[in-house]
Amino acid sequence: METRNFQELVANSWQNGLYGCLGLDPDVSKIPACVKGSGVIGRIYQFLTDIIDESKDVVGFFKPNLAFFERYGSTGIQTLKELICRINIVAPGKPIILDAKKNEIGNSNLGYVDFVFNYLGVDAVTVNPYLGLLALKPFFQKKEKGIIVLCRTSNEESDEFQGQRVELTKRLKEEITIYSPSAQSFLGEFDETIPLYLVVAHRAHVYNKTFHNVGLVTGATYPEDLKPIRQIAGSMPFLLPGIGAQSKTGDLEADLRAVLENGFYQPEGNVIINVARAALYRSQNDDYAVKCMEYIVRLNSIINAWRASV
Amino acid sequence: METRNFQELVANSWQNGLYGCLGLDPDVSKIPACVKGSGVIGRIYQFLTDIIDESKDVVGFFKPNLAFFERYGSTGIQTLKELICRINIVAPGKPIILDAKKNEIGNSNLGYVDFVFNYLGVDAVTVNPYLGLLALKPFFQKKEKGIIVLCRTSNEESDEFQGQRVELTKRLKEEITIYSPSAQSFLGEFDETIPLYLVVAHRAHVYNKTFHNVGLVTGATYPEDLKPIRQIAGSMPFLLPGIGAQSKTGDLEADLRAVLENGFYQPEGNVIINVARAALYRSQNDDYAVKCMEYIVRLNSIINAWRASV
Repeated sequence: METRNFQELVANSWQNGLYGCLGLDPDVSKIPACVKGSGVIGRIYQFLTDIIDESKDVVGFFKPNLAFFERYGSTGIQTLKELICRINIVAPGKPIILDAKKNEIGNSNLGYVDFVFNYLGVDAVTVNPYLGLLALKPFFQKKEKGIIVLCRTSNEESDEFQGQRVELTKRLKEEITIYSPSAQSFLGEFDETIPLYLVVAHRAHVYNKTFHNVGLVTGATYPEDLKPIRQIAGSMPFLLPGIGAQSKTGDLEADLRAVLENGFYQPEGNVIINVARAALYRSQNDDYAVKCMEYIVRLNSIINAWRASV
Repeated sequence: METRNFQELVANSWQNGLYGCLGLDPDVSKIPACVKGSGVIGRIYQFLTDIIDESKDVVGFFKPNLAFFERYGSTGIQTLKELICRINIVAPGKPIILDAKKNEIGNSNLGYVDFVFNYLGVDAVTVNPYLGLLALKPFFQKKEKGIIVLCRTSNEESDEFQGQRVELTKRLKEEITIYSPSAQSFLGEFDETIPLYLVVAHRAHVYNKTFHNVGLVTGATYPEDLKPIRQIAGSMPFLLPGIGAQSKTGDLEADLRAVLENGFYQPEGNVIINVARAALYRSQNDDYAVKCMEYIVRLNSIINAWRASV
């Protein structure tokens, strides 16, 4: 591989049966007391380095969340950059997705594009569609990167706007069925309206036909909604947060099965299953990195067992 | 004033007839060659410091855009912090709005809240509503700050989702008219659907009833759409980008008049009129700061003349 390419990197993880994405959301109040380091930032760096080093072979993807680093201002940004360098050294084949939910207008996006892809050097970023996907064009033009659009987010309140019923005009219906013939089967169910997140899924799918680097954020907390999104989005990668700490059932196997039954794209799945808190803070003892690694192994095993059974 | 309060600061600017908001969007390719400084960051700092010092008495508000600083990583963040300190020293009564379009889920927002209000120390921030306004609660809970929600953005592509026609259910119609009796007059025009941005305006208005610190971003490029938004949003502050460089007419007076006729809330307006490129880069000579200041003076004059005439 001459230059890193997000699509190739994720495909490689899927081929190796590595579906778990480790969310790097450092919360100093949850880091075990035994973790040493100079100040808050030093302890965060030590903790995440231990976690990364232990999990690097079993994790399919890494996903740092910008909010947990930007909180510490310029020092936090510097630490994030160092962690990304660290991942690229110890796990050069694993794609790094920055969860930053970026959104700007026109050329103002270039500032964020530079920050994310040149300064930090990650492989993919999450973006927010509210300004319109065309407004985010400077992101999509980075063809070797992954641009993952918020679609149906995992939080409880996501229905407030994402779930608004949008007029399913004749033109929109036709456009969706042209781009996504498999969506025809369920569009009949939606009489005259569809939820906004399906319009976002459709528009992202249209962009993907041109740019071939678009993914969707689709919450694992709404597994039944993954089915129509998958029928619209075809093979696009789904980044699925909501497994683990956000679970309503507390049953990892049942949660994963519900997600896979509705969102898995044969043969390799095209799903990136994120876990953060539930993996990072499994133990308050000095086995925290091992316990985190074991949780990711278990997650991969459940998915691969399901995959073998269907 | 014991602690800084965004609502009081903006009211003070309006009372003094200062409506112009100076957008701090540094673009090194547009900074005059005569601006000296150590490297790119040094020249940006010098340029913006000159601009701020010259304009501080005529500007009502400052609005740095995070993208233009984050582009330079940790150094850019540090520079932004220093510029904010500078504004607080030379213009302590002028509110600073960070344009960052932030959005996160639940407690992850706390990272951004800390960054924006504790680390940078600005008075207000723009947020993106796609995750749901309730998801942004940690922002709204900062009662002394301003939380300015993207509603109808100024960019050409903003219709892609913001303009989607949303089902105007009986319940939604009733809820809007309860909170905004003056909206009754136009809701009849919208037969069975309303654009999504009006639902966002309504929901933000509902939040403002509890938190009293919510504003809206409403593009000056769609002046006719400001009327229904104002009827829904009552006295809420409107941050209006799109004057100047984004103008379709090139006629500053006509553009401002169209905005004021539809968006001005009597008696003091409750509008924050943003200009960035059109003010910052008026001259490539060493009078760049004076020319910028004069543009803001002209903008304020047009608004105050209009205000006196109605």
